[in-house]
Amino acid sequence: MNEQNTKVRAALLTIGDELLLGEILDTNRLYLAQQLLPLGITVVCADTVGDEIADIVDAFKRALSRADIVLATGGLGPTADDLTMEALAKVFGVDLVFHPEVMEQIAQRFNRPISELPPSNRKQAWVPRGARVLRNDFGTAPGVHYPTSAGQHVFLMPGVPREMKGLLAEHVLPFLRERFPSNHVIVIKTLHCFGIGESVLGERVKDLMQPGRNPDVGTRVNAGVVTLRLVARGATEAEAQATLQPALAIAREALKDGLFGTDDETLSSATLKALVSRRKTVAIAESCTAGLVAALLTDTPGSSAALLEGAVVYSNAAKIRACGVKPETIAAYGAVSAETARELAVGIRERAGADIGVSVTGIAGPDGGTAVKPVGLVYFGVATANGAQTFERRLPGRDRAMIRERAAMQALDLIRRAALED
Amino acid sequence: MNEQNTKVRAALLTIGDELLLGEILDTNRLYLAQQLLPLGITVVCADTVGDEIADIVDAFKRALSRADIVLATGGLGPTADDLTMEALAKVFGVDLVFHPEVMEQIAQRFNRPISELPPSNRKQAWVPRGARVLRNDFGTAPGVHYPTSAGQHVFLMPGVPREMKGLLAEHVLPFLRERFPSNHVIVIKTLHCFGIGESVLGERVKDLMQPGRNPDVGTRVNAGVVTLRLVARGATEAEAQATLQPALAIAREALKDGLFGTDDETLSSATLKALVSRRKTVAIAESCTAGLVAALLTDTPGSSAALLEGAVVYSNAAKIRACGVKPETIAAYGAVSAETARELAVGIRERAGADIGVSVTGIAGPDGGTAVKPVGLVYFGVATANGAQTFERRLPGRDRAMIRERAAMQALDLIRRAALED
Repeated sequence: MNEQNTKVRAALLTIGDELLLGEILDTNRLYLAQQLLPLGITVVCADTVGDEIADIVDAFKRALSRADIVLATGGLGPTADDLTMEALAKVFGVDLVFHPEVMEQIAQRFNRPISELPPSNRKQAWVPRGARVLRNDFGTAPGVHYPTSAGQHVFLMPGVPREMKGLLAEHVLPFLRERFPSNHVIVIKTLHCFGIGESVLGERVKDLMQPGRNPDVGTRVNAGVVTLRLVARGATEAEAQATLQPALAIAREALKDGLFGTDDETLSSATLKALVSRRKTVAIAESCTAGLVAALLTDTPGSSAALLEGAVVYSNAAKIRACGVKPETIAAYGAVSAETARELAVGIRERAGADIGVSVTGIAGPDGGTAVKPVGLVYFGVATANGAQTFERRLPGRDRAMIRERAAMQALDLIRRAALED
Repeated sequence: MNEQNTKVRAALLTIGDELLLGEILDTNRLYLAQQLLPLGITVVCADTVGDEIADIVDAFKRALSRADIVLATGGLGPTADDLTMEALAKVFGVDLVFHPEVMEQIAQRFNRPISELPPSNRKQAWVPRGARVLRNDFGTAPGVHYPTSAGQHVFLMPGVPREMKGLLAEHVLPFLRERFPSNHVIVIKTLHCFGIGESVLGERVKDLMQPGRNPDVGTRVNAGVVTLRLVARGATEAEAQATLQPALAIAREALKDGLFGTDDETLSSATLKALVSRRKTVAIAESCTAGLVAALLTDTPGSSAALLEGAVVYSNAAKIRACGVKPETIAAYGAVSAETARELAVGIRERAGADIGVSVTGIAGPDGGTAVKPVGLVYFGVATANGAQTFERRLPGRDRAMIRERAAMQALDLIRRAALED
């Protein structure tokens, strides 16, 4: 990131004991980061503190030392542990000023005279001197905009997501858009791969990942899917795109054998897209994944067009009855074998009348493994009009859920590749 | 918080650009806070920084200035933007040391010789001098325990939730329990219910939920499962238990018609337990859930004893072929109907030779709903030796994934109840 001089930096601060006690998931941070991104504002840190005033003061100071804009949520309620206003006043050495118009608005909200409001609500009308009150149409706690003498901007918003979102949209984002007209635009592109390890992928795009480059390139992994993220900056959309495209072309070329989709696409949606675009149907026979492959594929709406049938054939009897596996095959090679995988795929394809038959049979653990057939050994069968193929994978680890998930993702990828064949 | 002198303080630090760019929700912090709570360890702050080394160093310093224990996640991967090890070394002015045993373990994981590993994986074997390596059985990135000269403890764990959880359970929590025996004991008991709404449950145990009580009682909801959490504190285990037990008895009595399990039990494990304890088998025919019920049931090891067979019958042709539903039934009542649900359950039970046959057919959305059969309408069939029953549910919302999950959980609960009958 080599635009330190022009970059507008934001710090997020979420306040509340409930966040540190593990009672609720902090979704405000994600939302705030997502809303700031298109404004070209970079979130440089996101801190959470509890309801102790010294901690809140400390956190504000740290945020102000790092950012042009501080967005804080929480601690604006009527109870004794709501201390964000006091903390902000302390940071700047100012006192709190009573705002009658806030009191008025709270009274309107409760539909009764100010004299009948509980004293705790009066507390909410005391705001640091020099701050601008942001009217909250979604609750009682007012928002606050505090412009500092150093040209920074602190915004306080309630922690309740609905109220935070309302204030952000009505007051904060419009101000930021006007005050910080983006001198640069950010464009983000993500590429999703399956079947390439993160380290192999990292090797292939090593040059793109040098620190300080524009676009900034990073990776992450989830359930066997490796995602490459390119974040390009430019003075204009066109400039950001011009920066992005060459890097994107290099990345696409480097990943092409594993690349299945971009941005919002998932392995499930990409597989369905492949099936639908080639007008092919699939039937799935699952042993160790026991329905996961079918469930993943049908995550995507519209999958009924492509998935004719699935069979969860956990037992040998079911493999024989529902997919026509020969008892001799199981007796000779075992249920977890390439031979059984082949007959499952061929059998389910024929019975369902599908273009593609896919099967999964393996040892998901944690028990049931042997030296010859360890936990994590999984066979896949793929049957098409061109015949049947089998694949063997030794999935790492001994975690049952993880082996099942990886195996199911692998099966999806096999379906996708089979659909795109010819 | 009046135990400042004896309180053990923890700081959480999550590292990764993806968290600041608003790409993924940080669930690790919530999990870590929840796991530390019963140890009597107080989380005092939780910060997030991106992948810039100066920021990571800064965040470590701040965490060390405030806490006895620092738990950091993320930035341990093989790529160039994974800088947590380097940052920690910089904080303490030590160099990185090559650990051959880590390299060995990575090679074993990939099942190939060290010489064939990409250089980026070598990076993962460099660990700050003075640190103890924590073996990661769920991925390649090793964990690290760095004890400081000031008696503090820094733990580095991968950002992938599954890997973080594995390392935490195997290495970090056991160490913390031994090193920081708590001067007060916290006992947590959770009760899980299905088929009772959160507000109804809240009403029934209203007296237990008064603020400031010991035990502290709260609720949460996930996928239709309502969980009641009782947190009891005492000077000793016996004292905490004595506080807990009367409240627990009241809660159990209040929830008994919906209660299926406690603590680590899930609806899947409770269903399997019911099947195994009554020596009953099940076969499942799924339309809108398309394998999810079977996949959920087989999350629990040992499920092969109970699940004879599953059929994913998305299409009408599959319903007819695999479960023997009469074409006239579908023509007269539709695929989403009590009548079709009944024939699916009876058909799969007979074909698989199971004690219990269960079916799910409904409209998961987002499209395909009508005024008469809206999105969220789901029919369930349950067939046993005593005959067949059907159930209609109108699941809220229009979110496909949520409707499918709720329907699958409902089917599990029906299997559980059918298993416990007679």
